[in-house]
Amino acid sequence: MEKENFILTIDTPDESGLIYKITKLISENHLNIIANDEFVDNSDNHFFMRTEVEGNFNKNQLLIDLKEVLPKNSTINISGQEKKKVVILATKEHHCLGDLLIRNAFNDMNIEILAVISNYDTLKPLTEKFGIPFHYVSHENMTREEHEILIIDAIKKYSPEYLVLAKYMRILSPWFVSNFPNKIINIHHSFLPAFIGANPYKQAFERGVKIIGATSHFVNNNLDEGPIIMQEVIPIDHSFNADSMRQAGRDAEKLALSKALKLVFEDRVFIRKNKTIIFK
Amino acid sequence: MEKENFILTIDTPDESGLIYKITKLISENHLNIIANDEFVDNSDNHFFMRTEVEGNFNKNQLLIDLKEVLPKNSTINISGQEKKKVVILATKEHHCLGDLLIRNAFNDMNIEILAVISNYDTLKPLTEKFGIPFHYVSHENMTREEHEILIIDAIKKYSPEYLVLAKYMRILSPWFVSNFPNKIINIHHSFLPAFIGANPYKQAFERGVKIIGATSHFVNNNLDEGPIIMQEVIPIDHSFNADSMRQAGRDAEKLALSKALKLVFEDRVFIRKNKTIIFK
Amino acid sequence: MEKENFILTIDTPDESGLIYKITKLISENHLNIIANDEFVDNSDNHFFMRTEVEGNFNKNQLLIDLKEVLPKNSTINISGQEKKKVVILATKEHHCLGDLLIRNAFNDMNIEILAVISNYDTLKPLTEKFGIPFHYVSHENMTREEHEILIIDAIKKYSPEYLVLAKYMRILSPWFVSNFPNKIINIHHSFLPAFIGANPYKQAFERGVKIIGATSHFVNNNLDEGPIIMQEVIPIDHSFNADSMRQAGRDAEKLALSKALKLVFEDRVFIRKNKTIIFK
Amino acid sequence: MEKENFILTIDTPDESGLIYKITKLISENHLNIIANDEFVDNSDNHFFMRTEVEGNFNKNQLLIDLKEVLPKNSTINISGQEKKKVVILATKEHHCLGDLLIRNAFNDMNIEILAVISNYDTLKPLTEKFGIPFHYVSHENMTREEHEILIIDAIKKYSPEYLVLAKYMRILSPWFVSNFPNKIINIHHSFLPAFIGANPYKQAFERGVKIIGATSHFVNNNLDEGPIIMQEVIPIDHSFNADSMRQAGRDAEKLALSKALKLVFEDRVFIRKNKTIIFK
Repeated sequence: MEKENFILTIDTPDESGLIYKITKLISENHLNIIANDEFVDNSDNHFFMRTEVEGNFNKNQLLIDLKEVLPKNSTINISGQEKKKVVILATKEHHCLGDLLIRNAFNDMNIEILAVISNYDTLKPLTEKFGIPFHYVSHENMTREEHEILIIDAIKKYSPEYLVLAKYMRILSPWFVSNFPNKIINIHHSFLPAFIGANPYKQAFERGVKIIGATSHFVNNNLDEGPIIMQEVIPIDHSFNADSMRQAGRDAEKLALSKALKLVFEDRVFIRKNKTIIFK
Repeated sequence: MEKENFILTIDTPDESGLIYKITKLISENHLNIIANDEFVDNSDNHFFMRTEVEGNFNKNQLLIDLKEVLPKNSTINISGQEKKKVVILATKEHHCLGDLLIRNAFNDMNIEILAVISNYDTLKPLTEKFGIPFHYVSHENMTREEHEILIIDAIKKYSPEYLVLAKYMRILSPWFVSNFPNKIINIHHSFLPAFIGANPYKQAFERGVKIIGATSHFVNNNLDEGPIIMQEVIPIDHSFNADSMRQAGRDAEKLALSKALKLVFEDRVFIRKNKTIIFK
Repeated sequence: MEKENFILTIDTPDESGLIYKITKLISENHLNIIANDEFVDNSDNHFFMRTEVEGNFNKNQLLIDLKEVLPKNSTINISGQEKKKVVILATKEHHCLGDLLIRNAFNDMNIEILAVISNYDTLKPLTEKFGIPFHYVSHENMTREEHEILIIDAIKKYSPEYLVLAKYMRILSPWFVSNFPNKIINIHHSFLPAFIGANPYKQAFERGVKIIGATSHFVNNNLDEGPIIMQEVIPIDHSFNADSMRQAGRDAEKLALSKALKLVFEDRVFIRKNKTIIFK
Repeated sequence: MEKENFILTIDTPDESGLIYKITKLISENHLNIIANDEFVDNSDNHFFMRTEVEGNFNKNQLLIDLKEVLPKNSTINISGQEKKKVVILATKEHHCLGDLLIRNAFNDMNIEILAVISNYDTLKPLTEKFGIPFHYVSHENMTREEHEILIIDAIKKYSPEYLVLAKYMRILSPWFVSNFPNKIINIHHSFLPAFIGANPYKQAFERGVKIIGATSHFVNNNLDEGPIIMQEVIPIDHSFNADSMRQAGRDAEKLALSKALKLVFEDRVFIRKNKTIIFK
């Protein structure tokens, strides 16, 4: 019987002796630890651990044993090496989607793209070049709620583990988000300083910002305010107008999203309240 | 007579043939152009030019000649190689001040620090190590206006060309700022995204930001909203708390401020409306 | 008659009054300068200028007029807004090619990919998804010279303006390079410090480098030593092995190559001796 | 009795169950783990662990207990919160020394500078401003060996834990280095690509590099080839000459050295063969 690698993640209220209890069980199961990270968030006494183990073991039994020794509200997870199943939502911009389709095609990331859904048909040819189903769900002539119901219907056929918003330009309702708690990952531009209100690129241009950024984050009820996973910046100067700033921002968005997904899909990212703990 | 280097800066409404008219005059004065930058901001048809010339010439005559051929509202300036005379305002933090004092002492930058003024005496020993006058002007038991009058009195004795706020933690009134139009340079932390309201470091910590930034900018009536000169960022992670984030931000602040001052003091920075044009 | 934009580039031994002479001709042709950059390399008295002009004019006449007033060895070029015609050489790695194919498909860059040529057929499916001809020219059972003759035959059918080596893993002979002087652009990994000899990733791993880089450059007789166009770096740490370092380096390579090509294809890059002058 | 914080570092051949054995002892000593990092270098089966613990315990007893359960060749260390005692060697350049003197004066880093030693007296006034002893040990009219003997005499008076080469421009003999194994930290410029031989700045200029870097590393017998701790880069362009490249490199050097020292002095850096494992 061949040895397999597993990733054990534990997220629990902190108490003394946790690492000792966990590694004792790992040791008793004759598992070899090949990577191990822990972190205690002292601000709310919470413990996080990610362990890569190698060996043969009864996964369910280990889960039961761990539950017994760990605090009540622990979240314990063991994953194997299956790729994460993902549905992508996009609108018209190709840069993030294109990057993910190529990474998917060449196994560059622990991702399996099940389908792409969009409120425009712009990206259908690109998506279908890679043999991925594309669903065009226009939002025209319907309420947000009606549109979201159609989108969710399309998504649910695929039972994805994660939903990736690759420049999906529609605001999601709290109801939509509540269907996929902690499972929606978004990318959007960020400015330093931030600009509130309409047309942030125009505002950034008028303020003459020298850096443009992109932030990838989980989505909670406030679309752009969920826990941050990854941020990238690129330098710009006075020769950029609002359009070239937008264009320049795309490289940052593409990079921030793919780095964020890589981390999440390797089970390196924990969510706690409104922030992430990430073991790189 | 030895040849000297001069920097000619022109900032004027754009019209066709400007470069031709200017370089014609430079050519007729037998000046050698050793560096030249131009930029036209198409969003408001404004022209910017910075030229380093070498040679002997009548500075006043060239200014008169340029005025004659350039549009009415032109700003024309010729500077030689004198260091920029600067007064620094600080409060208690030493990192930016210390960096500037060392650069001043070793001629690392085109700066001559005339004095340091502070509302605390914390930085007096550091300043005086370098033989620079230190003025302690406490703000206790007085109104903002009374304090600002004392500060301005202290500044005006030195007739500085620029005022540098090296972590001066007092809000300046519009009246104060109006005494030094386009001549006050500030440094402050920046977040991606920005946080409005009290204790931004606490907010940034709770949101789990992955990047901390610093922005150096000219000061106009809204303290933190003048034209941006330079921005720096540094990556952080979940292991930072509000304190270590603040500490980490200092390297970014120190770097952003010294880079901004270097650019301004070499006459590389133009202000236009609420942004800067910078010829690096 | 509609107004057109043109880019005028001039590269000439420096002499006094050059800008004046050139802008005089531009002015006499009633052309509007919308962007202008000059640089003088004082180390060998050479002058570089890139000017974007708008207007209607006789291109050939302007070239003749410029030649008359400029020094003998001047290189003068005027280009319109046609995309640069490019043939890509690749081997087995998809990351740079995939990025360029998507940018080509969506007009993200001033590029028209005419064909992809490879010594393996690995990338044929990816290339043909985008409707681009793919030529598989194996190097097996032939000398380097025989192989290069076949490659050049395949290239010349397309008469490209530029040849892009998107991770083409064969060393090019000086004879091959001499067929495309200053027209071949390469991307390769770079280390800080550099490692001489076989398997640089293994060496970098054993030295524990903390940064991995990528350099895009023109190719001259020494494959990895032509004039540098663009460099990117990404931070790594001790948890990377030689393989994950290689994988991590790909994002840097992809970014450095696409940024370099963008600059070259917008006529922003001059080659002088073994270095580049770039007007961003 | 007040609780104290300690840092436990362990560096040992890997074997199964190590973490379990160590945390068992920590648990039995009623110590609270407030931060914990482990890493296994699979390339040579070596285990590294850094644990911050809080509590009251018998340090010697814990060391004895750990030795008993760990493999024979383990390196085990427990440090408290005393600042690291350091002697700095410098030559003429002030930028790194100035930065460290200010950090030392304001407790910005876990450092206590005992003395500065130099082969020139250039930096004597700067050093003495901060009340730090300065030793001028000229290398004139003596052999390298004679000079090194004098330097070592000057150092040994202070019994420092670390020796920092803050732009000390003399090559150290293997004999000198062998006096301070794994205790000398150097900073030097780095290029991408690297340049072998004399005047690397001139070579970098002639090649037109677009990035300048700085590397901080431990010193072994080959001065510039010890284990790397930290690397920084800054972008440059064609407008830099060899001098301004050198000047620009200083900010990178200052930053890389201070970041490296911060990591080392917080016991975050392990040396293994020719590389470092760093727990940030």
